[in-house]
Amino acid sequence: MATIKDVAREAGVSVATVSRVINQSPKASKASIACVKSAMDKLGYRPNAAARALVSQSSDTIGVLVNDVSDPFFGTMVKAVDAVAHKNGKHILICNGYHTAQEERQSIELLINNRCDGLVIHSKALSDDELIEFAEEVPCMVLINRHIDAIAGRCISLNNYKGAYIATEHLIRHGHTKIAYISSNHNIEDVEQRLQGYRDALKQHAITLPDSYIEYGVPYGEGGEQAMTNLLTKSLEITAVVSYNDFMAAGALAVLDENNILSPEQISVIGFDDVLIARYIHPRLTTIRYPIQMMAETATELSLSLARQAPMKASGLVYSPTLVQRHSVRSLK
Amino acid sequence: MATIKDVAREAGVSVATVSRVINQSPKASKASIACVKSAMDKLGYRPNAAARALVSQSSDTIGVLVNDVSDPFFGTMVKAVDAVAHKNGKHILICNGYHTAQEERQSIELLINNRCDGLVIHSKALSDDELIEFAEEVPCMVLINRHIDAIAGRCISLNNYKGAYIATEHLIRHGHTKIAYISSNHNIEDVEQRLQGYRDALKQHAITLPDSYIEYGVPYGEGGEQAMTNLLTKSLEITAVVSYNDFMAAGALAVLDENNILSPEQISVIGFDDVLIARYIHPRLTTIRYPIQMMAETATELSLSLARQAPMKASGLVYSPTLVQRHSVRSLK
Repeated sequence: MATIKDVAREAGVSVATVSRVINQSPKASKASIACVKSAMDKLGYRPNAAARALVSQSSDTIGVLVNDVSDPFFGTMVKAVDAVAHKNGKHILICNGYHTAQEERQSIELLINNRCDGLVIHSKALSDDELIEFAEEVPCMVLINRHIDAIAGRCISLNNYKGAYIATEHLIRHGHTKIAYISSNHNIEDVEQRLQGYRDALKQHAITLPDSYIEYGVPYGEGGEQAMTNLLTKSLEITAVVSYNDFMAAGALAVLDENNILSPEQISVIGFDDVLIARYIHPRLTTIRYPIQMMAETATELSLSLARQAPMKASGLVYSPTLVQRHSVRSLK
Repeated sequence: MATIKDVAREAGVSVATVSRVINQSPKASKASIACVKSAMDKLGYRPNAAARALVSQSSDTIGVLVNDVSDPFFGTMVKAVDAVAHKNGKHILICNGYHTAQEERQSIELLINNRCDGLVIHSKALSDDELIEFAEEVPCMVLINRHIDAIAGRCISLNNYKGAYIATEHLIRHGHTKIAYISSNHNIEDVEQRLQGYRDALKQHAITLPDSYIEYGVPYGEGGEQAMTNLLTKSLEITAVVSYNDFMAAGALAVLDENNILSPEQISVIGFDDVLIARYIHPRLTTIRYPIQMMAETATELSLSLARQAPMKASGLVYSPTLVQRHSVRSLK
């Protein structure tokens, strides 16, 4: 590959002149721009991004940490970050953390070492203290789907508790009292918060159910199948199920279908997240909307504004989940 | 942020010594490693990835171009690339090309400028000639889901034609003759190849159908809904539908359901890709498996081996699609 020296030789100018042309310095003359560009074309020269990053102290990248980019929820998040990045002439560097502390830590360090101009971090395994330390070191780091009081202005989160509360209350208002809960078995705060929302909604309406009404599984289709199968096995009287997320709800519905149990006629199901699949499973899934696209856009804009040391007004937001009514809930009244 | 000079001063050694420690040079003594590391910890120094990349001429990244990372098909592809990257101590840089020539071109140039150690490119809008030119410039570039004869050894592709042929023949073998086709309206070769597979399977079995049996839409759920609605509107006698992909099939099934047309009892539907959604829509979708995970892993390994100038034996593969039988096809025999 041709070097900057080759270009200088070909163009008959100094390396410094070539550098000025590449970096669009106002000091470069029109004549030198023309002959340098022609030499670059002739030699197939490509400016080295690392060298430019070193000079400008900017990599023109926004770093993103997600749990797993192949999960459509995170795919939507990454796409939203990319859209804002693109508008700002930047590209994105993506790391998967897989909800483990070591992967999350290594990923954040890697993104920091790459001198990203923005950092949008979805971390669930690292402690508040460790994230606060990272945030102090990197002024442009923004957390998404996490709220830490000490750095609240840099957290874009969702009220997970409220989402599950709304879902459960929606079923209660439709006459359901025998409401099971299908939970994720991942050890992250979202799981605890949503479960608490379910419990408190029942309590608020004076409904008491044994813990056997709660089943756990991995937060994907298989986990929903497993948890629903376990609930059926226990011969519980159930008229409705609140699911940790849409994928688990899809798995639960598949098991009901295989067992010739009609939904919503016999068992109503409500999901969480409103990912694309929710509209195409049968029955179309009533669910709780997680505005991840909007949240990811805001997080990215906040991160870029912090990098420019021009903080946005609307920083540090706790978003509210909303109910999306489709066809998987039946009224018992 | 502390610089390498600050570390040298704190440790009482030269900048060159600090550099040797950072780059794990065998010339660094144990004593200097210890005092440099302690100085780095004290100052919170982080090695600049751009500087290291410039010295080593390696960025420790693998560049990936996809159509749209939020599409679960590409999410799966990116995850597979990331898994291989990770095993090789590298991370990934992702660009979305959105099936437009300009975005694809800019993305590839950006990845080249970043001196990626591997390039896995899903390009549909650029011409063969332009991709061959890029491939000549960058020895580690591998194409996925595209076959170009001149650089066949660097192409990992699927026989799209065969997939649609198999799908259509599966329906014919089950007694169907009135078989509609729901096509993507994107102007990419996959669309033409799959449509041709459908046409040739009909022809092979002496089935003649008017062009009105083919409808088009965007390759997502909405497009499938639109195309299925159009087919129903035309009052055609249809017993089965071959769909361009699973998402369009999901949309088509949703429209059938809303119109109280039972599937598979009245209309059989067969998809393409076997993305996660296929297992959870109703009825569970019979589809054509696109082994994107395996293909993306192979493409990444091929790219890294090319970068090491140690080409793999199994380079340049055309993969075969296979049929996955679930519950959306009924036999008329």
